[in-house]
Amino acid sequence: MRDPRYDILFTPVQIGPVTTKNRFFQVPHCNGMGHAMPLAHAAMREMKAEGGWAVVSTEECEIHPTSDLTPYVEARLWDDRDIPALALMCDKVHAHGALAAVELSHNGPTASNLYSREVLIGPSHQPSKYGYPSQARAMTLKDIREYRRWHREAALRAKRAGMDIIYVYAAHDLSLPMHFLQRRRNHRGDEYGGSLENRVRLLREVLQDTRDAVGDRCAVALRFATEELLGPEGVELSEAQDIVGLIAELPDLWDVNVAAWYNDSVPSRFAAEGAQEPFVSFVKKVTTKPVVGVGRFTSPDTMVSQIRRGVIDLIGAARPSIADPFLPRKIEEGRVDDIRECIGCNICVSGDMTISPIRCTQNPTMGEEWRKGWHPERLSPKRQASRVLVVGGGPAGLEAARALGQRGYEVSVAEARRELGGRVTREARLPGLAEWARVRDWRVGQIGKLPNVSVYLDSALSAQDVLDFGAEHVVLATGCHWRRDGFGRSNGLGIAGLADHPRVFTLDDLMDGRLPSGRVAVFDDDGFYYASIAADLLHQHGCKVTYVTPEDSVAPWSVNTLDYRHIRKRMAKQGIEVHVSHGIVAFDGATLTLENAWDGTMSERACDAIVMVTSRLPDDALYQALLLREAEWSLAGIRSLRCIGDAEAPGLIAHAVYAGHRYARELEEPSAGEVPFKRHFHAASADNLRRDG
Amino acid sequence: MRDPRYDILFTPVQIGPVTTKNRFFQVPHCNGMGHAMPLAHAAMREMKAEGGWAVVSTEECEIHPTSDLTPYVEARLWDDRDIPALALMCDKVHAHGALAAVELSHNGPTASNLYSREVLIGPSHQPSKYGYPSQARAMTLKDIREYRRWHREAALRAKRAGMDIIYVYAAHDLSLPMHFLQRRRNHRGDEYGGSLENRVRLLREVLQDTRDAVGDRCAVALRFATEELLGPEGVELSEAQDIVGLIAELPDLWDVNVAAWYNDSVPSRFAAEGAQEPFVSFVKKVTTKPVVGVGRFTSPDTMVSQIRRGVIDLIGAARPSIADPFLPRKIEEGRVDDIRECIGCNICVSGDMTISPIRCTQNPTMGEEWRKGWHPERLSPKRQASRVLVVGGGPAGLEAARALGQRGYEVSVAEARRELGGRVTREARLPGLAEWARVRDWRVGQIGKLPNVSVYLDSALSAQDVLDFGAEHVVLATGCHWRRDGFGRSNGLGIAGLADHPRVFTLDDLMDGRLPSGRVAVFDDDGFYYASIAADLLHQHGCKVTYVTPEDSVAPWSVNTLDYRHIRKRMAKQGIEVHVSHGIVAFDGATLTLENAWDGTMSERACDAIVMVTSRLPDDALYQALLLREAEWSLAGIRSLRCIGDAEAPGLIAHAVYAGHRYARELEEPSAGEVPFKRHFHAASADNLRRDG
Repeated sequence: MRDPRYDILFTPVQIGPVTTKNRFFQVPHCNGMGHAMPLAHAAMREMKAEGGWAVVSTEECEIHPTSDLTPYVEARLWDDRDIPALALMCDKVHAHGALAAVELSHNGPTASNLYSREVLIGPSHQPSKYGYPSQARAMTLKDIREYRRWHREAALRAKRAGMDIIYVYAAHDLSLPMHFLQRRRNHRGDEYGGSLENRVRLLREVLQDTRDAVGDRCAVALRFATEELLGPEGVELSEAQDIVGLIAELPDLWDVNVAAWYNDSVPSRFAAEGAQEPFVSFVKKVTTKPVVGVGRFTSPDTMVSQIRRGVIDLIGAARPSIADPFLPRKIEEGRVDDIRECIGCNICVSGDMTISPIRCTQNPTMGEEWRKGWHPERLSPKRQASRVLVVGGGPAGLEAARALGQRGYEVSVAEARRELGGRVTREARLPGLAEWARVRDWRVGQIGKLPNVSVYLDSALSAQDVLDFGAEHVVLATGCHWRRDGFGRSNGLGIAGLADHPRVFTLDDLMDGRLPSGRVAVFDDDGFYYASIAADLLHQHGCKVTYVTPEDSVAPWSVNTLDYRHIRKRMAKQGIEVHVSHGIVAFDGATLTLENAWDGTMSERACDAIVMVTSRLPDDALYQALLLREAEWSLAGIRSLRCIGDAEAPGLIAHAVYAGHRYARELEEPSAGEVPFKRHFHAASADNLRRDG
Repeated sequence: MRDPRYDILFTPVQIGPVTTKNRFFQVPHCNGMGHAMPLAHAAMREMKAEGGWAVVSTEECEIHPTSDLTPYVEARLWDDRDIPALALMCDKVHAHGALAAVELSHNGPTASNLYSREVLIGPSHQPSKYGYPSQARAMTLKDIREYRRWHREAALRAKRAGMDIIYVYAAHDLSLPMHFLQRRRNHRGDEYGGSLENRVRLLREVLQDTRDAVGDRCAVALRFATEELLGPEGVELSEAQDIVGLIAELPDLWDVNVAAWYNDSVPSRFAAEGAQEPFVSFVKKVTTKPVVGVGRFTSPDTMVSQIRRGVIDLIGAARPSIADPFLPRKIEEGRVDDIRECIGCNICVSGDMTISPIRCTQNPTMGEEWRKGWHPERLSPKRQASRVLVVGGGPAGLEAARALGQRGYEVSVAEARRELGGRVTREARLPGLAEWARVRDWRVGQIGKLPNVSVYLDSALSAQDVLDFGAEHVVLATGCHWRRDGFGRSNGLGIAGLADHPRVFTLDDLMDGRLPSGRVAVFDDDGFYYASIAADLLHQHGCKVTYVTPEDSVAPWSVNTLDYRHIRKRMAKQGIEVHVSHGIVAFDGATLTLENAWDGTMSERACDAIVMVTSRLPDDALYQALLLREAEWSLAGIRSLRCIGDAEAPGLIAHAVYAGHRYARELEEPSAGEVPFKRHFHAASADNLRRDG
């Protein structure tokens, strides 16, 4: 079944005392569940193992209360009480023939200790990284010995939990062995500071400690950042090359990437598949040990090329394994076009960032494996032979149709436009968002294999059309549009004079090809990616662009998808003028009046047009029309009518895909009650909380 | 024992079917533990009941998965599985004769639903409040009926848990009954929108529903915001007066305050005790029902005045009950000068904001009641007759001395300056921080009652002095100083040329009275309150102040203490020029060169002096000197030597007080291991996680 070109991806690789079954390696990634939701976490990792990944890793794992990452929820091995949660994961990963890996970490000054209340530690006295109002103290030699003991003991606990690969972590500017390497964090005058050899000492010792402690049965991996892109304050490629040279054979496996996280998991808008190659390809030339690297690889041809050309030995993946946990099995089974490719939107990252369970735009089952029992590849068959009419072929409608089709329903999709994909198709034409079309392409591809799903383009339906159609179930996924009237978070009553002004544009205008020219202000009361994309587009179109927002920073929510710094840098490079903390008071087609949110001062500027990126309104006219005719549904044979996705409440593409998927899962199924999922409850011992309600 | 003037504070108040034992009412407050840490939460609430509060409330309590506040951790009553956690709290509160109250809330568009993945709901289509990339949909009439059912069912669950008072919540811009009142959120054209009577309809219905459901045994309280300080977009006092008039007798209790949270729990820097009186005093004139209000009341005379003058009937408190859970008992027992008064620093708020357990500057046991078994009033007696030398009389040293003294140790405090309090005394002289001296005053007052604690001022000690002193235990709490060299988060290698420049100042210079004049730039690489205080001081001193920060917003961490908006408004009012996203490249005493962090452009400005607020260095010379002489300790009789507080790692005053307290608690006690506290573990059922480690 498998294409022989891809055979090399399925050859085993020896890593110290363990051997992988193939070359697919799910590198450590955060997930917002961690120690707080051990059953949900284990089920999510198990899905990767079932999907064919040879190695399945945890997220970073706190080894001691002085490395407490609260509020972020990662793995934890503070003491023996933390072993069962990770043992559960190991059991589930092993059940599918995969190896389990854990990334041990002491985060030094990049921890918070908000929960443990311990004093932060670091190579030298320094502020905590993330703005917490506390400093780390310089570690004494005794502290260094203690830290090494904690790391050894955590490694032993990990081994007892059943881990096969134990990571030493020196990447992402997130752990002490890396902090000791960094001149900006390490000002020590003793044998752990100064020369490169001295700054490498701790990393070398911890690698050796780990091998001594668990090397008989476990492989020792090193996750290592080869470049921080900070200039001389950071680890630079040339120095990283020296470091790899110094300890080339010490780990059993090199896992190499670029720091910090925003330079590692770069959104697709700012980096293509394989973008890290220039920074990591040297490693294999220096060591005989296997090397794993990442690059948001979803193409098996690219993967083979990486191995053939000697860039890496193992195909590391975080995001592609989230979008499709079954990626390896699909390649193995010759079903390459069934791969649900990551679109690089980084909604997965936003889970960790917002301390909530991981989500994925492409894979609506991500994070739902345990609590809803959702499997990314399997859906329960339909209970009866009903027909479903899906109105709208955007992300919600396509996913509903696909999943309903997989369940065996007779599905008809009516799309008003001449192309499928709705907002995904439209947004994918904006600068940098081309990969987002994968949301459409995978679903259209899958639907094409389902004889029970019919698609009708250019088919705007009226309420009468729907009633006449004769489907038992109707689901409306008719999308939304951007408001022109200024209404949004900062203007609950709108902005006078904008709604009908011919020089006021919306994102819909831009996506429809109606672009202003001249001096254009983009007003961002939304806070995520849309306004920066509009600015990007208008800049490319030759406009003189000003970005205005009532928020105190640019695109604040984009921090959660790691877009933020890249957006800021691009806007700066393009010369886009930025006005934060400003609202729009008036616009007459030639002059824009702004108000400073803090001091109330007004300012005027010449301006030919404004683009409002504030909020959206559902396109739910059909839904409202059908609600008014509810008395006729029964005669028309309609048993249920629902409105989903942006047509119900505008949100992310991820929300729309989830809404479509959930609709399909739940159709004609018994209700799961007010709380339709399992939960973790939080007890010191269950008995303490047991009582008669 | 009790001063008869305060008798009125101890008279019962009838609230519907229940009666309080006195007039002390702990209003709902967040705590960062909530449903995630039910045992810790219940123990914290129990301490309030033990301390004499007649009513002890939860934080806001989510009534349904469509009101999921993740990542914030509040109370939860989604279904019956949530009852045991709150029943535990009720049992513990009732054990001390107090009443338990719960604040039921559906947060509508101010929820996140990040965990539940449900669609947000609101009066009308609108963006979610907190920047999440999702919108709430307009509730249909059926949705309104469903919401009312959820609220009723949650009230019934609360009653089953044992609650005595059930809140309907219409405050802080955080719940649907308030959102329906707000013109900016409610654009409905039906009977729930438009006229005031229509906008009040939902609140009226929910009050009636709640009484119908649980009114036989439970009181129905209404938490109501009388003013939002937003002008016509918000609830204004005049409209609030009309609303109170419309439903004056419907609740059993009015709990009234100002919205949003940052206008309710205003830091002491920006509002004094009793500041809400002008906004809430009208309520008692309109209703016959009892009224509770807040005002960070710590003075019993003020409390009596509030009642005598007919402002309120019950003394509401959140922060004062955190700083001193035993405040009512201390008044009752005639120990008014033992009250540990809230300083209004809002570190308590930062717990909820950073999704970590609540902390308090004044009360280091807050949040530690369950996990460490710490009681705010009791410490275990010393195990043997040791003498302790405390070097340094700042917050860490004073708290260590006080708690050690309470344990019965012979304690000597040596303070180098001629006044006690260290940084607290120095910072309390800065604009707006006068109340911070309470940290010193309470401890000095308590120490004054302990014959076994001696205090020596003007007593700088050398290492030889310490060795000669003859104490078995030495604890160094010698503080820290601000760096002048630019070293900080953004400059890990410092900034060339600043360290010795005479026109470069630090906060220590300012606190010592060495102020620059003319054009002064304050460089904030710290991000909390210090730089804004420096700007405030220099402005008052007549300087032309510019605020520069490499961060992308002003004082970003101050969001977590609700200072942020007040700081911004004051800086704007003072005309302080703000440059975010800028680093300092050079300063020669006349010209300051800045670099834009995003586009790298350099700019120069005339500048007479700069104040560096970047990071701090421990004053640990004595500690280092004593470490070098470790061989002599034994002969000198020293059994232990520790360095704590800012002298170990500069942080908050709260960190210093905690460090001193912890030192005192743990002295000569057996080690509690690597993780010196109990933890909650997170299992669906404990059996699922039980296995042999």
